[in-house]
Amino acid sequence: MIQTPKNIAIIGSGLVGSLLAIYLKKLGHQITVYDRRPDIRNVQFSGRSINLAMSDRGWTALREVGIEEEVKRIAIPLDKRAIHLAGKPEYYQKYGKEGEAIWSISRGVLNRKMIDLAEAEGAKFHFEEKVWDVNLPEGKIYTGATEKGAWKEYDYDIVFGCDGAFSRVRHKMQRRSRFNYHQEFIDVGYKELTIPANEDGTHKLDMHSFHIWPRGKFMFIAMPNMDGSFTCTLFLPFEGEVSFEKLNTKDEAKKFFNTYFPDVTPVIEDLTTDFFKNPTSALVTIKCYPWTYWDKVALVGDSAHAIVPFYGQGMNAGFEDIFALKEIIGRFGDDWEEIFKAYQLERKPNADAIAELSYRNFVEMSSMTADPMFILQKKIEKRFAKKYPEKWIPAYSRVTFSNQPYAEALANGNAQEEIMKEIMKIPNIEEIWDTDAVDRKILALLK
Amino acid sequence: MIQTPKNIAIIGSGLVGSLLAIYLKKLGHQITVYDRRPDIRNVQFSGRSINLAMSDRGWTALREVGIEEEVKRIAIPLDKRAIHLAGKPEYYQKYGKEGEAIWSISRGVLNRKMIDLAEAEGAKFHFEEKVWDVNLPEGKIYTGATEKGAWKEYDYDIVFGCDGAFSRVRHKMQRRSRFNYHQEFIDVGYKELTIPANEDGTHKLDMHSFHIWPRGKFMFIAMPNMDGSFTCTLFLPFEGEVSFEKLNTKDEAKKFFNTYFPDVTPVIEDLTTDFFKNPTSALVTIKCYPWTYWDKVALVGDSAHAIVPFYGQGMNAGFEDIFALKEIIGRFGDDWEEIFKAYQLERKPNADAIAELSYRNFVEMSSMTADPMFILQKKIEKRFAKKYPEKWIPAYSRVTFSNQPYAEALANGNAQEEIMKEIMKIPNIEEIWDTDAVDRKILALLK
Repeated sequence: MIQTPKNIAIIGSGLVGSLLAIYLKKLGHQITVYDRRPDIRNVQFSGRSINLAMSDRGWTALREVGIEEEVKRIAIPLDKRAIHLAGKPEYYQKYGKEGEAIWSISRGVLNRKMIDLAEAEGAKFHFEEKVWDVNLPEGKIYTGATEKGAWKEYDYDIVFGCDGAFSRVRHKMQRRSRFNYHQEFIDVGYKELTIPANEDGTHKLDMHSFHIWPRGKFMFIAMPNMDGSFTCTLFLPFEGEVSFEKLNTKDEAKKFFNTYFPDVTPVIEDLTTDFFKNPTSALVTIKCYPWTYWDKVALVGDSAHAIVPFYGQGMNAGFEDIFALKEIIGRFGDDWEEIFKAYQLERKPNADAIAELSYRNFVEMSSMTADPMFILQKKIEKRFAKKYPEKWIPAYSRVTFSNQPYAEALANGNAQEEIMKEIMKIPNIEEIWDTDAVDRKILALLK
Repeated sequence: MIQTPKNIAIIGSGLVGSLLAIYLKKLGHQITVYDRRPDIRNVQFSGRSINLAMSDRGWTALREVGIEEEVKRIAIPLDKRAIHLAGKPEYYQKYGKEGEAIWSISRGVLNRKMIDLAEAEGAKFHFEEKVWDVNLPEGKIYTGATEKGAWKEYDYDIVFGCDGAFSRVRHKMQRRSRFNYHQEFIDVGYKELTIPANEDGTHKLDMHSFHIWPRGKFMFIAMPNMDGSFTCTLFLPFEGEVSFEKLNTKDEAKKFFNTYFPDVTPVIEDLTTDFFKNPTSALVTIKCYPWTYWDKVALVGDSAHAIVPFYGQGMNAGFEDIFALKEIIGRFGDDWEEIFKAYQLERKPNADAIAELSYRNFVEMSSMTADPMFILQKKIEKRFAKKYPEKWIPAYSRVTFSNQPYAEALANGNAQEEIMKEIMKIPNIEEIWDTDAVDRKILALLK
């Protein structure tokens, strides 16, 4: 499919911006990508930085433009969680069925690869060129060294805002009347740490697991990199009894790790140095509407719907926006007004759904250990799903290992949760949980 | 009470900004008020413009600084609603008990008076000076003719943002991490119209009533002015079957008014001219947090909590912020960090509550006519409240004729609503609604 060529600007050369460049180039457009930062391919980084989990939706979007296999070569499949409970041996929990996995991939490594691929398609990149203003009805963008200095004006047919959670393009839309906007930070912050490779380059923990140390109100996770290291993240409340605000000295940080994560503390690299050198970052959910302005401007990815990272779906949701956009273009051809209308109508409920699922999942992930009834419920669900795989697909699988719209996955998940609430009310559920009586009750409730 | 004098800037010379200037001046501070607009006292306006309803909270705040009586002289008490149902004679509904009233007052007239009073206290006003940026930790503000032009820098001990729903001061706070922000427009817009005075200067409708023409999904209201005119507002969905988007010609507008408001249409001044000359405006709820930055910057009024106008509490809530701030200053003396902490902690839940109540009230106001069960419920409540006035204060009275914190008024109102839900489930409620059996059931549920 080829559209009538348009002169298109994409603001932001991140994962979503560069994948969109590839898609639009293949549709016949002239593409210029602007980024305020330097070219990530020339910036020194360890290759570890923040890790992503690519799952089915992401792969579907990459496959569509023929780059799935190339990206799989820089990713590590994780087919299970490795759960490290305090004072107990680690145990494994399969993510899904045989062959189902999420893929650990470094944001930096992937971003470099995507820009290479977009350039190979013929997209032009302007790095270190800061967009300060957008004329929405005319598709003009204004760039310059500083906000108050001299600006250059560029004229485009269409402008895409792929400039992330703190999008400048959205910022401009936000000042219009009837633009709904929500940004909500959670009380939990995060900090990156590292577990280095063994001397022979192998991984210090199982390399095909997503490692998690759940501790109720906080947790520590580790995801493998190709170089043998693990990128780790501590999620911890900003304030309160056990919190970032209580960890102000190297001794306090060391004591905290020795108390809650004694098994992993010895292998974390430069723990107390990194703890104070690396920033404590905040986590935000951003919702807005509309996402588009006439046939001129559209937001894609985090700029339209930033979410908290607890479902590992941020990048996947952004890539799915692009996949959906192409399908919609197939329906409407060159009518960009209709394309943008359909795009926002179709994607908005799905973005809201994955925002909700991601928000809820922090509670699920960090309390995996705490509540025996919660663990029992998961066991019952798992048993039933195995026996009746066509009747019970866990919410996690719907989100991660399918392309079912997020809004449907959320609705199905809620319905299943209601059923499980009824099941957990059975007085002697602890004794009879693995009997046919429970199966029959679930089957009845499913009707 | 006198505090250690501070050099304080107030951004915004609206109602909240000028009342805050009076309060702070009386506490001993040096006050400069900035406004991007010209001095409203030199601007020609009809004296009608948007009308406000001052109720108990507003009067309490004015009384504290001795200006209640002066302001009452430019306001008209309304002790009842005059309800104009389609094809039926108008009927009256008392707002509260004997002597309880809301007061209709012109925003422009009141604002001029408040600036006069603030100047008389010694506050300085800088009109047509636009604040473009604020240095939050240092209390510096930057003003200039244009955003990109040369700026003047001023240094203050404290900066108050009283610059309304689209506050520039909040805009600056919004770009910080962990600042929660929500703006949500409703699908209903509004347009101002006018009913002029009779030739002898008297009012064409009862002057001590809040006039309302409820029509389900839309409504028309009229509030009296001192000059004999009424300021009217049409609230109507932007889109849909009956909506602003369907009224594009003078004929369409005329037909719409003749169909839905035939009794009042003949007396509206220049109806079809004004309908297209006056803007169709949007209505927004804005929530944010925090409201303050250290001991340097605080938001007061709409800048912190803009609400939809259906409870008539926007100005009252802003004035109550100031009254509460003074009470808190009484507790903490010169410790502005503690003052600001306590101020936002105390006011935030109340602001959220009045936002919720205001949002809900549109449904209540515009459907007053539609649902006979709703009308019956209101009759039962009224009957019970009259019989047991100490046991049942209607939510409207708690909000309008008391200084009970909004959050409590909302909680009490919700509890009463739950009770009424039970009452309305009584199978033959239509027959027995005015019997002792119903009273006894309510009394039992109140336990």
